[in-house]
Amino acid sequence: MTAPPPIERLALIGLGLLGSSIAHAARRGALAGHIAGHARSASTRNKAVEIGFIDSVHDSAAACVADCDVIILCAPVGAYGAIAREIAPCLKPGAIVTDVGSVKGAVIRDVGPCLPKEVHLVPGHPVAGTENSGPESGFAELFEGRHCILTPAPGTDPDAIRVIHDMWAAMGSDVEMMDADHHDRVLAITSHLPHLIAYTIVGTASDLEEHLRREQVKNGDVVRTSEVIKYSAGGFRDFTRIAASDPVMWRDVFLNNKEAVLELLGRFTEDLTALQRAIRWGQGDVLEAWFERTRAIRRGIVETGQAGGFSATEPKKGSSEDSEA
Amino acid sequence: MTAPPPIERLALIGLGLLGSSIAHAARRGALAGHIAGHARSASTRNKAVEIGFIDSVHDSAAACVADCDVIILCAPVGAYGAIAREIAPCLKPGAIVTDVGSVKGAVIRDVGPCLPKEVHLVPGHPVAGTENSGPESGFAELFEGRHCILTPAPGTDPDAIRVIHDMWAAMGSDVEMMDADHHDRVLAITSHLPHLIAYTIVGTASDLEEHLRREQVKNGDVVRTSEVIKYSAGGFRDFTRIAASDPVMWRDVFLNNKEAVLELLGRFTEDLTALQRAIRWGQGDVLEAWFERTRAIRRGIVETGQAGGFSATEPKKGSSEDSEA
Repeated sequence: MTAPPPIERLALIGLGLLGSSIAHAARRGALAGHIAGHARSASTRNKAVEIGFIDSVHDSAAACVADCDVIILCAPVGAYGAIAREIAPCLKPGAIVTDVGSVKGAVIRDVGPCLPKEVHLVPGHPVAGTENSGPESGFAELFEGRHCILTPAPGTDPDAIRVIHDMWAAMGSDVEMMDADHHDRVLAITSHLPHLIAYTIVGTASDLEEHLRREQVKNGDVVRTSEVIKYSAGGFRDFTRIAASDPVMWRDVFLNNKEAVLELLGRFTEDLTALQRAIRWGQGDVLEAWFERTRAIRRGIVETGQAGGFSATEPKKGSSEDSEA
Repeated sequence: MTAPPPIERLALIGLGLLGSSIAHAARRGALAGHIAGHARSASTRNKAVEIGFIDSVHDSAAACVADCDVIILCAPVGAYGAIAREIAPCLKPGAIVTDVGSVKGAVIRDVGPCLPKEVHLVPGHPVAGTENSGPESGFAELFEGRHCILTPAPGTDPDAIRVIHDMWAAMGSDVEMMDADHHDRVLAITSHLPHLIAYTIVGTASDLEEHLRREQVKNGDVVRTSEVIKYSAGGFRDFTRIAASDPVMWRDVFLNNKEAVLELLGRFTEDLTALQRAIRWGQGDVLEAWFERTRAIRRGIVETGQAGGFSATEPKKGSSEDSEA
């Protein structure tokens, strides 16, 4: 009596945070009749079976995609090319290949040419995640209220786009269409550069950490405390959370959005050098004018409701999220 | 029958976020018999009177400190020298001057020489704050569970130190003693450099924002959306919150902790250049090794409970704080 699920057979290639969250969300929404899963490592496959969020597990990506209607690549972007070459001969005509990667131009470049003509490619990017990774970190609510950006090439079959659109919408996302190049430039500034900067500063701090340990006597014991960690609430903490994100995934993001990231890094370094010079020469007016300008951007974020439950007008009293000085 | 308040007459020079929060906390804990307040701008003074967190308001800092036992400088650090020169002749013998500045060497340098011999100087830094500023942003709980670092010079009267120690402890802070130079180096990495980097990247993004607006038709109207703001949850958002902090306060922090900040900036830029080179040359192993290392720092922060209620093992489901990719 109930309607059949919109996707008969769904394949997930990669069962980390994103893959497992999609499985949970697809289960919850009855979006797929069968969920087939593949992960490169045996321990991840075993964990997925143990948690039970997939219906069948496969040692190879090729075996996993056989007879599937929708295939979602949930592996690091750098592995896409090899996966595409492996699965191409096993894809059924009319199948739709999509993905969750944070860069999109590289997907069209690496995956597109490998696929048979009668298979559709609809690259996608759910702008959602946490600092956690692995099959045990997934949860069905990950995509709720988040943006999901689809970047199909011009001429892609509208029905294939609609299937992927509806799948993300059913998982709670706000689905949008964008040109792949535009996506990569926007995400370079809103996500890739911030991650690179956070990784850098946390690494710089980690080198200094040894010098900034203090011996203190506590309950008769000499304790060496890391003061970098102890006083991290002064601003540094926000960077460490970002810099705890999955290393392989982020390695691949930077290598596959090289042009946009390097171009932005050039601009960032120019700006930082200008501020550094203002500090060295004591140009308080230059600093103050710059800092006044950045406030306006925050106001825009607060106004559009992207501030993460933090209001500009009402201080979040006693919040652990305070920006301390 | 009740014990007299530990401080008979307290003076607050500056009535912004910190000054008003101290007033609220001192009121709540009955820590002072009388709270005298001064702010440079008439509108701040009027607002303070209207909210009612001080007992008397004064047009000049000199008038405010007369007959006071404890004087807390809550103005931007760059103004300390002028304030110290102004109040010095009006300080009563035995009075204790303290402050809330984020740099401490500069306080000893600028304020110390101005004070009469029989006045005590106990520099202090409550590591607490929000992105909000002004007299209406203060609240009594701001200092609860936060570190407060005191950096008195060697030979400072122990009784004077104890009065300031007990005052912060009564406001809920975890009070610690530290050498001023050491404080300035620790805070440069945990707070000052992160703020400078956040200010920089948000400024860089703001220059690009105009190019990254898209025209979309919504309900028949053409709407130009800022995509930098729209997709800020990808990491950028965390930086904007930090970069919304008080411009004048932060200008003075950088100008008054110049040496430590410039030294760190040098290290940071070297590290960023190395990562930039790795991206350009496609050295994935260099990137991955760096990103693995930064995870350890986050683990340390989570273990010491400084992570802001965010647990490393349990994903904060559906949280607005997620680090998205």
